[in-house]
Amino acid sequence: MSKLHLLSPLGFRASGVVAGIKTTGKCDVGILTAARPVSAAAVFTTNKVFAAPVQIGRENIAGGKLQAVIVNAGNANACTGDQGMRDARAMCALTGAFLDCEPTKVLPSSTGIIGHMLPMDKIEKGIADAAVALGDSRQHSLDFAEAILTTDLARKAAGVEIKIGRQTVRLAGVCKGSGMIGPRMALQPPHATMLAYLSTDAAIPPRLLSRLLAGASDRSFNAVTVDDHTSTNDTAVLLASGASGAKLDSPRAVRLFSDALDEVCGSLAYQIAADGEGATKVVTIHVRSAANLHAARAIARAIANSPLVKCAMHGNDPNWGRIVSAAGLAGVAFDPDRCTLTLQKTIVFRNGRPLAFDAEKLSKALAAKNVMIDLTCRLGEAEATVWTCDLSKEYVTINADYHT
Amino acid sequence: MSKLHLLSPLGFRASGVVAGIKTTGKCDVGILTAARPVSAAAVFTTNKVFAAPVQIGRENIAGGKLQAVIVNAGNANACTGDQGMRDARAMCALTGAFLDCEPTKVLPSSTGIIGHMLPMDKIEKGIADAAVALGDSRQHSLDFAEAILTTDLARKAAGVEIKIGRQTVRLAGVCKGSGMIGPRMALQPPHATMLAYLSTDAAIPPRLLSRLLAGASDRSFNAVTVDDHTSTNDTAVLLASGASGAKLDSPRAVRLFSDALDEVCGSLAYQIAADGEGATKVVTIHVRSAANLHAARAIARAIANSPLVKCAMHGNDPNWGRIVSAAGLAGVAFDPDRCTLTLQKTIVFRNGRPLAFDAEKLSKALAAKNVMIDLTCRLGEAEATVWTCDLSKEYVTINADYHT
Repeated sequence: MSKLHLLSPLGFRASGVVAGIKTTGKCDVGILTAARPVSAAAVFTTNKVFAAPVQIGRENIAGGKLQAVIVNAGNANACTGDQGMRDARAMCALTGAFLDCEPTKVLPSSTGIIGHMLPMDKIEKGIADAAVALGDSRQHSLDFAEAILTTDLARKAAGVEIKIGRQTVRLAGVCKGSGMIGPRMALQPPHATMLAYLSTDAAIPPRLLSRLLAGASDRSFNAVTVDDHTSTNDTAVLLASGASGAKLDSPRAVRLFSDALDEVCGSLAYQIAADGEGATKVVTIHVRSAANLHAARAIARAIANSPLVKCAMHGNDPNWGRIVSAAGLAGVAFDPDRCTLTLQKTIVFRNGRPLAFDAEKLSKALAAKNVMIDLTCRLGEAEATVWTCDLSKEYVTINADYHT
Repeated sequence: MSKLHLLSPLGFRASGVVAGIKTTGKCDVGILTAARPVSAAAVFTTNKVFAAPVQIGRENIAGGKLQAVIVNAGNANACTGDQGMRDARAMCALTGAFLDCEPTKVLPSSTGIIGHMLPMDKIEKGIADAAVALGDSRQHSLDFAEAILTTDLARKAAGVEIKIGRQTVRLAGVCKGSGMIGPRMALQPPHATMLAYLSTDAAIPPRLLSRLLAGASDRSFNAVTVDDHTSTNDTAVLLASGASGAKLDSPRAVRLFSDALDEVCGSLAYQIAADGEGATKVVTIHVRSAANLHAARAIARAIANSPLVKCAMHGNDPNWGRIVSAAGLAGVAFDPDRCTLTLQKTIVFRNGRPLAFDAEKLSKALAAKNVMIDLTCRLGEAEATVWTCDLSKEYVTINADYHT
């Protein structure tokens, strides 16, 4: 992972242009497109407040085929009523006109501030420029990856190449996400503002593609949290051009592709945690031998979302009582008398009792860029991994005046 | 509210002494006691990880009678295994010996760091000193109120006097809480570290007292959140000495007392939000006309717990999209097309559409010490109020190095 980029899979073009929606002067309108309608799957936010483009996206993905994705950053087109719906449809219509495809084969995405009408003059100019700029080079991938960012400090991309039978299949993706990150995406109903766009040249029918994307999302995007604030716009889309000629025509081929998808989505999710607002480190929470999968995820998420835990991690503070108590408040089966808690490979709590450890040495180990929290529950066989980041003063700076 | 203090209700004595468990040199061991076993009720944390004193407290409250409460601050006696249980029992035994009462009529409480054994030499000396220091003056109330504090900056107290028939009844309380505040207390099973101690001289049998305390806690302590981190030690205890001679022998009398209890507990909960770690203001979230009480509370809590909302409030930023989207992620019935959102009396969003407002003026209004967020759902008749505070850099400072 990886020299591949979003346009390494055969059959795609993309672009990113500066439309002036973001105030940073960076790319903020992007198009990703296939040459014709291709097999497609998408998961969306489950927030009951969802943006206009999410509504249109749900409608347009229903047929299992998409030709293009049109994205803007700087404005979420959420909580914008009927006008917002008209604007999202206009984005699809204009993109479709330039690409010579049905507007219903275009999936729109928006990210940025909620409750402001889209600056349609800038959007229209941006779409026209982006349609002209389309190409399939690495630079085109980079421009598209930049066009979807908001408070992100870095572009996020991943890609892998696998063999299915004798054929080579490529799978790649880009994503954005730094704040308002607590995705809980599902096929129906929708959920964001985590945005991810994935491309592959494998040939995969829409129903299987949906199932694979939903599973991979649960293990990756839905397992990363910065602030647990499920957005109005979260969207992950996977387009399969089929241009490699490789079909997933055996259980083994499906498993190979599913593993590759997990690798790409997992890498992207990790990059979101690493670029979380104000983050100085990634905190990975592994929960093992929980009573069931729901419990494993709930415990990992409760630990990841505790501001007390996140601040302790920021301060390299082995204050593990915050971790154990967070596990206990998750509302699922948990027994401190059976569990073992390990911080950076140091056991600090086992079977209800604290263990002696060298606090200074552990504090130094916690100063790493990657911190591992391992909690063994001994109540069953389920496990889950959740990624988060620490909570710093910079987080407060970023979010106390994003709007005004 | 109020010239009354914790010892205004007839029949109680208290003390607070410096035992050296806290490093601040302030009172850290306290006793509250009646002259004999009296009617008592308590609610405890629902965290599955609960401290030894919570376990003992649940056992000792079972009979509905208590004579005394023994509290220490600076060490939570949580995650301390069998030794912790022995230490909590020893606290009760020693207190009982000094007060000439059964150890099972003493409720122990501890608050502070998790996972460290109690310094029993200091505790024992503290209990001996506290037993000698008992009295019923305002200063004794103040000393006890100080002995329960940890990261709190201020003592928290409230009291009211009501007439039941011709008799005067006094009700008062003290509490602590600044961080690890997201109580979800219940009669069974237990939950904290919110601690509250309430005294009244009304005569109320234990079963009714429990019901009244559980209801009042749901509307007050369980409706305040600083970090949503339900503690291992949360406890609220109400002792009823009966010394006023007043009985709750009519529905009207019960209602009068219940209202007074709501007033005292509500004031204490508000004081916790105001003294939340790093807080510069209190944010009150009113949710109205929700589908049901569970939905009303879940929506209010989702808004109160969003770090994005809390940072926006810190920055006086009318970024209301964060509030509406938090309501939508609560996992309960909510329809943005039916709701109205009001910030400091300015309507910003109604029926799915943003409303124009003077952002600069509203930002100035948000700079107040008390911020009101009102959300009308138009889905039913339930309502709920939750109190929280803003999220500041000071919060990170406090919590990044509490331990080491």
